[in-house]
Amino acid sequence: MTTTLHYLGPRGSFTHQAAVLAADLLEGDVELVAEPNVTAIFEAVREGRGWGVVAWENNVEGYVVPNLDALIDARDIAGFARVGVDIVFDAFVRPDHGELTTVRAHPHGLAQCTAFTVEHGLTPQPAASNAAACRDILPNEVAYGPRICGSLYGLRTMRRGVQDYDGGHTEFLVLAPRTQVRSRLSSLKAGGVREYESIVAFIPLITGPGVLANLLDLLRDSGLNMTSFISRPIKGNAGTYSFIATIDAAPWEAGFRSAMTEIIEHGDWMKTLAVYPRRERPSPPVSAWMLPEGGVHMDDIAEGALEGYLRDHEQDAATMDKELLWD
Amino acid sequence: MTTTLHYLGPRGSFTHQAAVLAADLLEGDVELVAEPNVTAIFEAVREGRGWGVVAWENNVEGYVVPNLDALIDARDIAGFARVGVDIVFDAFVRPDHGELTTVRAHPHGLAQCTAFTVEHGLTPQPAASNAAACRDILPNEVAYGPRICGSLYGLRTMRRGVQDYDGGHTEFLVLAPRTQVRSRLSSLKAGGVREYESIVAFIPLITGPGVLANLLDLLRDSGLNMTSFISRPIKGNAGTYSFIATIDAAPWEAGFRSAMTEIIEHGDWMKTLAVYPRRERPSPPVSAWMLPEGGVHMDDIAEGALEGYLRDHEQDAATMDKELLWD
Repeated sequence: MTTTLHYLGPRGSFTHQAAVLAADLLEGDVELVAEPNVTAIFEAVREGRGWGVVAWENNVEGYVVPNLDALIDARDIAGFARVGVDIVFDAFVRPDHGELTTVRAHPHGLAQCTAFTVEHGLTPQPAASNAAACRDILPNEVAYGPRICGSLYGLRTMRRGVQDYDGGHTEFLVLAPRTQVRSRLSSLKAGGVREYESIVAFIPLITGPGVLANLLDLLRDSGLNMTSFISRPIKGNAGTYSFIATIDAAPWEAGFRSAMTEIIEHGDWMKTLAVYPRRERPSPPVSAWMLPEGGVHMDDIAEGALEGYLRDHEQDAATMDKELLWD
Repeated sequence: MTTTLHYLGPRGSFTHQAAVLAADLLEGDVELVAEPNVTAIFEAVREGRGWGVVAWENNVEGYVVPNLDALIDARDIAGFARVGVDIVFDAFVRPDHGELTTVRAHPHGLAQCTAFTVEHGLTPQPAASNAAACRDILPNEVAYGPRICGSLYGLRTMRRGVQDYDGGHTEFLVLAPRTQVRSRLSSLKAGGVREYESIVAFIPLITGPGVLANLLDLLRDSGLNMTSFISRPIKGNAGTYSFIATIDAAPWEAGFRSAMTEIIEHGDWMKTLAVYPRRERPSPPVSAWMLPEGGVHMDDIAEGALEGYLRDHEQDAATMDKELLWD
């Protein structure tokens, strides 16, 4: 049976690259379908026409908040796999290119490859997307785009990896109707996959100081490890709060399940947005050299002793006042 | 004395509109200076060449994470004012325009005004920015841009407010060297402004389950109200954690100051990123109609009673399994 996997087009986008990775990950025949926007991807999944892949988080830009909001508010859709794509731009030309005078890409792509543009004396021209720049490339043009554009549009690679800064990375979620998510997770469990990550959303129905602390106390007391946490207004309504947490556990594990039970007994709203096999993640120790510029960090002050210490140390007191805006 | 206020150009950007608002807010002569990127804005402020204005949060896209990361890691810079701009696009033409066949804007601008484009049968053409589209407009073109572009570039307004969806809103922070931030806050206090909001960043030096819950317990026990909260990797280092909170209090108020003291005595890193007068904010009650699609919300289950209830109610148990992915 062929499954269709819907992604944000046009063909040759970074999401297309993520969809190719996701198709490799999934078994069986997968047909990729480019959609004009993310709403169309959610519609395709909700109507049972296939699976979807959407950008979730970038290490520089943070969460892709419109996609996060859409998944929170999607009926009967959840994520069951997470794939990552390094943000690498290649410089492409036509096989029959002439003198190269112009470079074309999405304004973000142009902004991320300025050194190559300057080195080759090219005039930057904006395109609607990097993929469109590659698809519509003229003989006098260079186009910046994801690697996949080379084979897709029959282009010659002028140079690989022309981005100014390495290390850009975007993670994507693969979405399906909830019944299919459950059967895939069952197969994974049966296949011996034991460690999972979950993304959950909750909304406290009674708000006020301490609501969030009480919620997190529950997770802490259940021994759950959280790897990401953000607050968001509900559907953009200013002054309302939902919370989205990524947790190192599956919702069917006893500790997590009992924490969720308590949250629901408290009358709060809750939904599991995604469950997928746990990723390998670095866990570097945070040492002083990694701390941001400025700020305050004192590693030898006993509890209750700071105010006394500051009375005796004018210089440290002045730093504290400046960095914390204490006066 | 003239103060310069540095913003992300080109002239006619939404940030330019925010800078005009900020200049009105601040006393004295303010000269606006367009910068090519946000790094140049932080450099200007750090070198004492003036103040800066940077985008902070959009109600649809969430935090402007690169700017947030830059402020966390900026030496001796803090925010002292917060201004908001509604994201409204006007359709501009040249006073001497001819037949209109094309519309030009940044790809994001084009994507936000599709109805007007279709209504007028225009061919969309990407520009490097909305402001550049307005500045370089041709006789056969319509350009979508912020209202300020009309007077700035001597254009005729074809129609106001052509965005597909109303309600887009971006908030900006006004930045200055910390000594100037402190003297401005002193003036505000002397002038009778009593209520403030603060944005603080903290980094737990010893991580593990419960770190965040313990931190938030401290804030709760000090009676502090948090209106936004997110986690971020430190300088993009995967597996490390900083937390950014917006709090309804000034750091010099007793409760907030004592909570910060405890955090520092615990050996954690902390910095105040911004303090500004408290904004009027809506506080709508969260009622059932406002909840997202799907999910679980039971408002009449006593503590400890959920599992028993589910044994007796197959339908609710099935919903729970599906929405929470409990099996």
